[in-house]
Amino acid sequence: MSAHFRNIALIGKYQSPDVVEAVLEIAVFLRERGVSVSIEQGTASSIGEAGGYPVATYDEIGAQADLAVVVGGDGTMLNTARRLAEHAVPLAGVNLGRLGFLTDIARKDALQKLGEILDGNYSEESRFMLDAEVVRNGQRVFHTLALNDVVVNKGELGRMIEFELSIDGEFVYTQRSDGMIVSTPTGSTAYALSANGPILHPSVGGIAIVPLCPHALTARPVTLPDTCKVEIALLPPHDARVHFDGQTRFDARAGDCVRLTRAPLSVRFLHPQGYSYFAMLREKLHWSASPRHN
Amino acid sequence: MSAHFRNIALIGKYQSPDVVEAVLEIAVFLRERGVSVSIEQGTASSIGEAGGYPVATYDEIGAQADLAVVVGGDGTMLNTARRLAEHAVPLAGVNLGRLGFLTDIARKDALQKLGEILDGNYSEESRFMLDAEVVRNGQRVFHTLALNDVVVNKGELGRMIEFELSIDGEFVYTQRSDGMIVSTPTGSTAYALSANGPILHPSVGGIAIVPLCPHALTARPVTLPDTCKVEIALLPPHDARVHFDGQTRFDARAGDCVRLTRAPLSVRFLHPQGYSYFAMLREKLHWSASPRHN
Amino acid sequence: MSAHFRNIALIGKYQSPDVVEAVLEIAVFLRERGVSVSIEQGTASSIGEAGGYPVATYDEIGAQADLAVVVGGDGTMLNTARRLAEHAVPLAGVNLGRLGFLTDIARKDALQKLGEILDGNYSEESRFMLDAEVVRNGQRVFHTLALNDVVVNKGELGRMIEFELSIDGEFVYTQRSDGMIVSTPTGSTAYALSANGPILHPSVGGIAIVPLCPHALTARPVTLPDTCKVEIALLPPHDARVHFDGQTRFDARAGDCVRLTRAPLSVRFLHPQGYSYFAMLREKLHWSASPRHN
Amino acid sequence: MSAHFRNIALIGKYQSPDVVEAVLEIAVFLRERGVSVSIEQGTASSIGEAGGYPVATYDEIGAQADLAVVVGGDGTMLNTARRLAEHAVPLAGVNLGRLGFLTDIARKDALQKLGEILDGNYSEESRFMLDAEVVRNGQRVFHTLALNDVVVNKGELGRMIEFELSIDGEFVYTQRSDGMIVSTPTGSTAYALSANGPILHPSVGGIAIVPLCPHALTARPVTLPDTCKVEIALLPPHDARVHFDGQTRFDARAGDCVRLTRAPLSVRFLHPQGYSYFAMLREKLHWSASPRHN
Repeated sequence: MSAHFRNIALIGKYQSPDVVEAVLEIAVFLRERGVSVSIEQGTASSIGEAGGYPVATYDEIGAQADLAVVVGGDGTMLNTARRLAEHAVPLAGVNLGRLGFLTDIARKDALQKLGEILDGNYSEESRFMLDAEVVRNGQRVFHTLALNDVVVNKGELGRMIEFELSIDGEFVYTQRSDGMIVSTPTGSTAYALSANGPILHPSVGGIAIVPLCPHALTARPVTLPDTCKVEIALLPPHDARVHFDGQTRFDARAGDCVRLTRAPLSVRFLHPQGYSYFAMLREKLHWSASPRHN
Repeated sequence: MSAHFRNIALIGKYQSPDVVEAVLEIAVFLRERGVSVSIEQGTASSIGEAGGYPVATYDEIGAQADLAVVVGGDGTMLNTARRLAEHAVPLAGVNLGRLGFLTDIARKDALQKLGEILDGNYSEESRFMLDAEVVRNGQRVFHTLALNDVVVNKGELGRMIEFELSIDGEFVYTQRSDGMIVSTPTGSTAYALSANGPILHPSVGGIAIVPLCPHALTARPVTLPDTCKVEIALLPPHDARVHFDGQTRFDARAGDCVRLTRAPLSVRFLHPQGYSYFAMLREKLHWSASPRHN
Repeated sequence: MSAHFRNIALIGKYQSPDVVEAVLEIAVFLRERGVSVSIEQGTASSIGEAGGYPVATYDEIGAQADLAVVVGGDGTMLNTARRLAEHAVPLAGVNLGRLGFLTDIARKDALQKLGEILDGNYSEESRFMLDAEVVRNGQRVFHTLALNDVVVNKGELGRMIEFELSIDGEFVYTQRSDGMIVSTPTGSTAYALSANGPILHPSVGGIAIVPLCPHALTARPVTLPDTCKVEIALLPPHDARVHFDGQTRFDARAGDCVRLTRAPLSVRFLHPQGYSYFAMLREKLHWSASPRHN
Repeated sequence: MSAHFRNIALIGKYQSPDVVEAVLEIAVFLRERGVSVSIEQGTASSIGEAGGYPVATYDEIGAQADLAVVVGGDGTMLNTARRLAEHAVPLAGVNLGRLGFLTDIARKDALQKLGEILDGNYSEESRFMLDAEVVRNGQRVFHTLALNDVVVNKGELGRMIEFELSIDGEFVYTQRSDGMIVSTPTGSTAYALSANGPILHPSVGGIAIVPLCPHALTARPVTLPDTCKVEIALLPPHDARVHFDGQTRFDARAGDCVRLTRAPLSVRFLHPQGYSYFAMLREKLHWSASPRHN
């Protein structure tokens, strides 16, 4: 039995055939280690069975679990992080395919690595989220959290949008572009990177704003302190679509204002021993794999 | 008389004809305000006269002055900042030409803005520097500070160099390139920007590493926390030239290691009221100058 | 009377209040010079009157006019170029606001510059177009021309798309991205430039393919010879939206193939004397305006 | 015996231990096929022996050989191409390590692929070179050819340079930067690519100009028609160093002018059957290796 984790919830990628076997195998392993195991409701119904394990909603997981093990890819982890954000449940990620930026335990190593975590051999890392709201005529019309990024993008018409950027209430510039990515360090290796944004180490207290195909050639990515309040006010005539972690979206109208701050609560990731952020970057970005031996 | 500043040193760009008039005009103004004025030694000899004002070395300025007024451009300010680094004397910058990133008082507004600063109407901003050393066979062979950046560049031969990057003792990657810029937030709008580096707001506690023409297309700028220790170990066969703020240089050999950390002391800039970092970026980068009135 | 141009059609930007006055002023001027003037049908109804001038459809203009004078901006010129493509009518552009890349006669100089053109003092430039078709299950379901670019973009859902690129029937790569811009030299200073595409001088016989936020960091813009046949085959699951000169669009489905070749016919632009492509780039891109006098 | 090639010269990378075995093995193979084999003088002395084969200078090779087989890497090929430029001897490249952009026959396939070429199973490709001269006070002080690129770079001092760019005698802009790459399509996958230049397919008749760390953010790569005359006039105060294919260099002074045109003669590359430019790009740039099978 683990002195550290007594109640562990398993959350799997929905509609993924591979996930059933992995979730149940991990569940058996954890139960044998004396841990109380529950399976997230949607995961249970998606895998068609819960194997006799108790089923729990995200809220129940948040209230009871000491740890949530996410089985899938980065998308599943992003969704879980937002769902459990207010409960501060630590998260560990098992990746079914190629390792993800956020799910750093390989499927084949899952039992061994989770065993090490149960034994207390892990490191904990904190990642901040963005608190995002859309304001229309002075009223909040949408609110959510994002662990990776908030993207204000051209709307359904596909027309370049125009907006005013303000930081802490100060006008910064008017921009015409396909949109703007506002990214946490966690999101800096996701969509923002493909838009030529800077990689931000997770320990940097910064928020990156990365323009998408800006009309002006002098628009460059800027990293702001994470204490900033970022406001993007949509100018007429075109509407915009706002994406949160690439999973939730909101159709904003000209005149709406998207307001972003660092959320007060953070996501807690548990990594097995030997985890290295730079090793993960090397693998994902195909950087040179080893020192040169002269 | 100013309750805030009793001893003010004037430091001017060397070998610049315009600087004589500006320095002497400011000196007269400050003396009339009851301030003790001294003129930096090299500035005095460069302008050919000190107008009867006491001449002081950088060390004497560091020991005695409450404020140093720098008259010139960003280059003069960078040099002054390194020279006075250990003394924590606050700096204000008067630009003779187009406004600089660091010298934000226009020549024509100099007396008025300096008067406001004397009256206590200013904001103070802290900028960190890099502490840089070159180590050869375990011995430090060079040491200096840099406010903008340290650039490890190809050497006299002009051949692509190869090096290993380590962060806090952990190997990150081997890179073949023209070199690497390691930049503070202050330097992020200087050379690093022309190499596609990210702009870092001065309040971000980050150090940007920006590759110069890397051979591998997946090498991207990375922003590290300013608590990091960055090491660049030069691999054979090619030598490198290391530039500090574009002003000092050191010819490093294959096998040398360039080590960089955040310097313990910071530079203190005084800005007149109305100073805005974003307004400065707008002007220097030709961003859209004003909100759109709908 | 002009020996060169006997029948000139005027085409104005629709729904633009400024265009009425300009079109009628130019019409008067041309008539006084002995030219037969007609006004494009939509322009006439948009300006609410044709001032007694004959109204002509695009087809009639194509059949009868020696020259079409376009009054508006680059958008109006793009639309006209496609409409008149098969007729080889030369085009001259008068810009009502800031000069465009394609409409290079300033409003205030319009009468003088058009007068010079009537006198035969002009240069003619040829710009090629893309012939674009969308093929579904072996059948052509859409066909058009584009002077600037064809953009295969993410569809209504806003999800990253995946496609296979083939050149002259040879597989090149599979790409996951927000989309792909296929641009003529004319379009290389438009949308493609904001996506970090290369500027192609109008005399270069090349087609640029510029990825939009590609998932792989090694995807770079490639310039192909304009004799190439470019095919973009959409892979499931996501649909795409295809934009032609940013003016026409087609909703393509997974499985569709977008096929692009150089159109056999070219657009003929007439420039008044003194026109310079590089001068235009300098102005539009804010390049340094003049040689340095040493 | 080959009906196509009767006299073949072998040229190997100097000072490379692996090259001896490869050159002699190829020589034996060719002689057995009835071909007259000669070995380039420097290659012969570098490998320490010529194995009884006749030794030939580059000029003799140019006068006598039907084909030159280059054994080494892209650097060896670049050097050979310039040396044999005026003789139009076709070149085939055997790479000893990882395949090069220009040496596309793998070491292990060398005999088989060369055998196919002897049998006439090959494709021929033409690549143009740049004719480069440096003019000082109206006198040509340096002249050479370049197959990849001419790079006007900062000089020994490492200071940013300033220059005026003219195309066909027309002033284009003044630029302050680390330098400028002028690249052929062949060179577009070499140094220019690491400076964010565009890839130019070898069939595109274009010359790319790619700025190196330009001070102005609006400086972008431009592709010019290969009929252009490009002039880069160095402005005071800083000197520049001009690199040709990264192999030859010339120290230019402020006031010098670097003039570039397409050289009248081209390099002829022979590729074995199955050669594909896009396949080579895929391998070298790590693009997705194969079509997706749905």
